[in-house]
Amino acid sequence: MKIAVVGLGLIGGSLCKTIKKRTSHVCLGYDIDCRVTAAAIDESAVDEIITPERFKEADITFLCLYPAALVTFAEEYAGFFRPDSLVMDTCGVKADPVRALTPLFAEKGVTFLGAHPMAGREFSGFRYAVDNLYENASFILTPTEQTPPHAVETAKTLAAQLGFARTVVSDPAQHDRIIAFTSQLAHVVSNAYIKSPTALEQAGFSAGSFLDLTRVARLNEDMWTQLFLDNRDALLYEVDTILGHLREYRDALFDGDADYLRALLRDGREKKEASLGTLEPKE
Amino acid sequence: MKIAVVGLGLIGGSLCKTIKKRTSHVCLGYDIDCRVTAAAIDESAVDEIITPERFKEADITFLCLYPAALVTFAEEYAGFFRPDSLVMDTCGVKADPVRALTPLFAEKGVTFLGAHPMAGREFSGFRYAVDNLYENASFILTPTEQTPPHAVETAKTLAAQLGFARTVVSDPAQHDRIIAFTSQLAHVVSNAYIKSPTALEQAGFSAGSFLDLTRVARLNEDMWTQLFLDNRDALLYEVDTILGHLREYRDALFDGDADYLRALLRDGREKKEASLGTLEPKE
Repeated sequence: MKIAVVGLGLIGGSLCKTIKKRTSHVCLGYDIDCRVTAAAIDESAVDEIITPERFKEADITFLCLYPAALVTFAEEYAGFFRPDSLVMDTCGVKADPVRALTPLFAEKGVTFLGAHPMAGREFSGFRYAVDNLYENASFILTPTEQTPPHAVETAKTLAAQLGFARTVVSDPAQHDRIIAFTSQLAHVVSNAYIKSPTALEQAGFSAGSFLDLTRVARLNEDMWTQLFLDNRDALLYEVDTILGHLREYRDALFDGDADYLRALLRDGREKKEASLGTLEPKE
Repeated sequence: MKIAVVGLGLIGGSLCKTIKKRTSHVCLGYDIDCRVTAAAIDESAVDEIITPERFKEADITFLCLYPAALVTFAEEYAGFFRPDSLVMDTCGVKADPVRALTPLFAEKGVTFLGAHPMAGREFSGFRYAVDNLYENASFILTPTEQTPPHAVETAKTLAAQLGFARTVVSDPAQHDRIIAFTSQLAHVVSNAYIKSPTALEQAGFSAGSFLDLTRVARLNEDMWTQLFLDNRDALLYEVDTILGHLREYRDALFDGDADYLRALLRDGREKKEASLGTLEPKE
């Protein structure tokens, strides 16, 4: 099978390296930055670098672009893909891309399927792409009623070959609602956490809890701004929710109310324990 | 040297196991729960279990008790320790214990030195005590003007023998102010984070960022309630600070203001990058 990857950043570059490492599929790469394509060839991350005229060779294509670029790209290049081939994006939000891209590709007889490989690093770009980014990660698919079932099966099979821990099928809106909580809110809170003036005061006091809480504060602000605004309502709900909960601890502390504070902490502990069985599936 | 450990919970039990594993000091254990002392003997975590009458045998004693219990204990037993011996607590706040315990022990000729081994697990009690809890951890000491310098040197030497990555000397108030940010706030935020109704909705969506943000939500609410209230002002400042910052992201999202949102995220990324050199010393 021939797999094309459009956009050789962290996500696309890691897909290429994973395809090359774990499968015998042919990997075709495309990027507008010729320094990136040169690096991809140098590192044997792809079999070939292609131009849009060769998109039609691919059986499966991954579009690994920022949300805004994704729509522009599809508008320009949907007709370059082979009818009946499968095109997936890898965007961290799904409702907007699925809504915009599905008809653009359908018009050309190409199947578009929203996908989200749930993995990342605190660094961006091909130079940080690795061949094990997707180990233990979830591969989320968001088919619609028009998606042919065999496209979902093809994507699942490939995900297993690439070493994803699991494939989860969701609908686009549900995906975005849950991701607002499990990923986007984590980036907002982490990025807010580090802003205390106390942060730069002294070395040697950083326990694991601090490092955990602030790890993803180091984010790509251009990409996340797009992702957050594309999922504005769901993320706003989560930010408002944690603000409301934090205010409860704030009030308990302000009042010196040990019973209330203990009750708040117990509730959080119990909710964490309850979540261990559901949000963190063990394979 | 003989080292006594009073209170064989996670922290005390792990100290015992570390002493036995890494040093040739004699380890004497004390706990009011006889199931715990039996387990400590069974696992050879201590050389002997002692009664208060034998506290005087110890050259160094670690008091591994909750904040409130610590003061009650010192009031009752300060006279049981050998004059000129060194007693350290291991409490996660330092101003209150140092203020309360220093005179109680000084009256009996015993040197009290506030200490905080910065390590923990999401579980409490001797059954979770391990002999490697303090590897890569900071050992913080909070001497006062009355503390004899040789006591600090003795504690530093022992910390190195126990495998702590570093000893940091701080004053009690500064310790509490920084710990409010690097540890206490992390527990509050993590505990608040998990409370979103979205948390229990679906498996398979939990990226590393979510797991990092909520790891310490599983906390011991009795202990942390005491620690938080003993450090109320400093923690209140940190909770108010993150509430203020989170409201900025909230407003940017609400207004759909991409430029403001990007600027907020960039600022957080830059602050995280700046903190990498100071809060996370590499040895």
